[in-house]
Amino acid sequence: MGIFAFALDGSLTAIRTARVDIVGVMALGTVTAIGGGIIRDVLLGETPATFQDWRYLVTALAGCTLAFFLSRQLTHLSKPILVFDAAGLSLFVVIGATKALEFGFGPLQAVILGVITGVGGGTIRDVLLNRVPTVLSANSHLYAIPAMIGAGFVVLVDLTGFGPGWIAVIGALLCFTIRILALVYRWNAPNPPGAPPL
Amino acid sequence: MGIFAFALDGSLTAIRTARVDIVGVMALGTVTAIGGGIIRDVLLGETPATFQDWRYLVTALAGCTLAFFLSRQLTHLSKPILVFDAAGLSLFVVIGATKALEFGFGPLQAVILGVITGVGGGTIRDVLLNRVPTVLSANSHLYAIPAMIGAGFVVLVDLTGFGPGWIAVIGALLCFTIRILALVYRWNAPNPPGAPPL
Amino acid sequence: MGIFAFALDGSLTAIRTARVDIVGVMALGTVTAIGGGIIRDVLLGETPATFQDWRYLVTALAGCTLAFFLSRQLTHLSKPILVFDAAGLSLFVVIGATKALEFGFGPLQAVILGVITGVGGGTIRDVLLNRVPTVLSANSHLYAIPAMIGAGFVVLVDLTGFGPGWIAVIGALLCFTIRILALVYRWNAPNPPGAPPL
Repeated sequence: MGIFAFALDGSLTAIRTARVDIVGVMALGTVTAIGGGIIRDVLLGETPATFQDWRYLVTALAGCTLAFFLSRQLTHLSKPILVFDAAGLSLFVVIGATKALEFGFGPLQAVILGVITGVGGGTIRDVLLNRVPTVLSANSHLYAIPAMIGAGFVVLVDLTGFGPGWIAVIGALLCFTIRILALVYRWNAPNPPGAPPL
Repeated sequence: MGIFAFALDGSLTAIRTARVDIVGVMALGTVTAIGGGIIRDVLLGETPATFQDWRYLVTALAGCTLAFFLSRQLTHLSKPILVFDAAGLSLFVVIGATKALEFGFGPLQAVILGVITGVGGGTIRDVLLNRVPTVLSANSHLYAIPAMIGAGFVVLVDLTGFGPGWIAVIGALLCFTIRILALVYRWNAPNPPGAPPL
Repeated sequence: MGIFAFALDGSLTAIRTARVDIVGVMALGTVTAIGGGIIRDVLLGETPATFQDWRYLVTALAGCTLAFFLSRQLTHLSKPILVFDAAGLSLFVVIGATKALEFGFGPLQAVILGVITGVGGGTIRDVLLNRVPTVLSANSHLYAIPAMIGAGFVVLVDLTGFGPGWIAVIGALLCFTIRILALVYRWNAPNPPGAPPL
């Protein structure tokens, strides 16, 4: 579900932002969907999960195909897509942090790798589209911060040696809720002192 | 030969597009020539081939040096360079797909890794030059599509268990021919429905 | 020390160049500080050193935090920061080249990996900030060239089988001295013949 939502969102961003053909739409949507997991797995020293199981790639390509043919209709659905995107982010972040812990990485590293799993794909997409990545910019409505909180929760609970399983669900829900609240109330992270207002 | 052509093409693009010094020309030409293979090898979990055999690097640096000193003369030769570039693309794609199959990757992944081997270097170059990568843009004259067809042919034949060896040659020739035809007849891949004409 | 200086420099560049929030400042500073080492370790086939020892990350984050809160004061200190940056570059390059030699890479590869360790983080930062990387541009005051000389010295001495240890110190001093001289006297690397003057 996360991969499908990210592929949809990535493809639509590509169509809206640049002059791309079908190759560009498919490539940018797929990169958005699987790029974060690939960076994480490369840093973990693993063969990327998306190259081991073809269903990830097919799901991503299905999302891109839908976006290519229905881009005009889907732009009216930007709000539901933002919700799907927030859900994808939450799942990716929690999965990434959990995987890093399983590989024996420390807590700080696990949080960072969780966040990278969630935001890495969109960052590569924005770099390829020649934009400053949304996640870094001053008007991102806390994209990375809910990701850190979700990953941080999972990692903290893991440190206490307390339970696995549904803890990840709570981490994902935390991330999802904060992201949605930030979108609704237009929260932004602090800017450097002295920066001009948005 | 592919590395030399890609290095030449990458260096000339750098000189034409940005204010770069000799370091920029050498770095961007080398990245164009060996970047795709490096991404492929990192994703395969291998030490990049270009770091194991210094002759790849020397070939790339020779192409960059030639481009640096003769850039004014070589810009008149843009058509022969496009032909060399198409040849380089064809070789890279087929080598990349074959290597992925040898490492036990599935067919879809092998096609993608073949294409990445062919287009990855130019993509990194364009990102560093602050441009939307040519391969993704609407006016690319099918750069990625011949690559997919060439890689797809090699992978399909491999699936049938039929012969190795000269099959790769046919895959490369397929890619080369389609790319050259697309350049001559200015074919482009389909754009998203509703996109304004080029 | 190198990581702290690079984090400071990276964060300040981010604040000066783009509209980034606290997440952007922390992420771009950290990437500047540890990105080069990460690329090197991925190419060496190693788990990145910065993910094995949390003190690297904490040092980087401390530099970013300082830059975030004191950005207005620190912009007046651009000269001392350039000196720190040159020191960081020198250390990174020599460490990178030495590590590549220890992993059994050839001399040409060790020089390239040393340079990548030094300049890779700033390059990723510039790509994320949507700029042509400083190190490639025509007005870089020999950023990459002292790096090559420092790494080349370390590698050459290693080839002769002569001593380790303080040789790395001389390599770093060579790099540092040339970079500082280039900044003071505004030396630049040669441009392609026929390029318009800066």
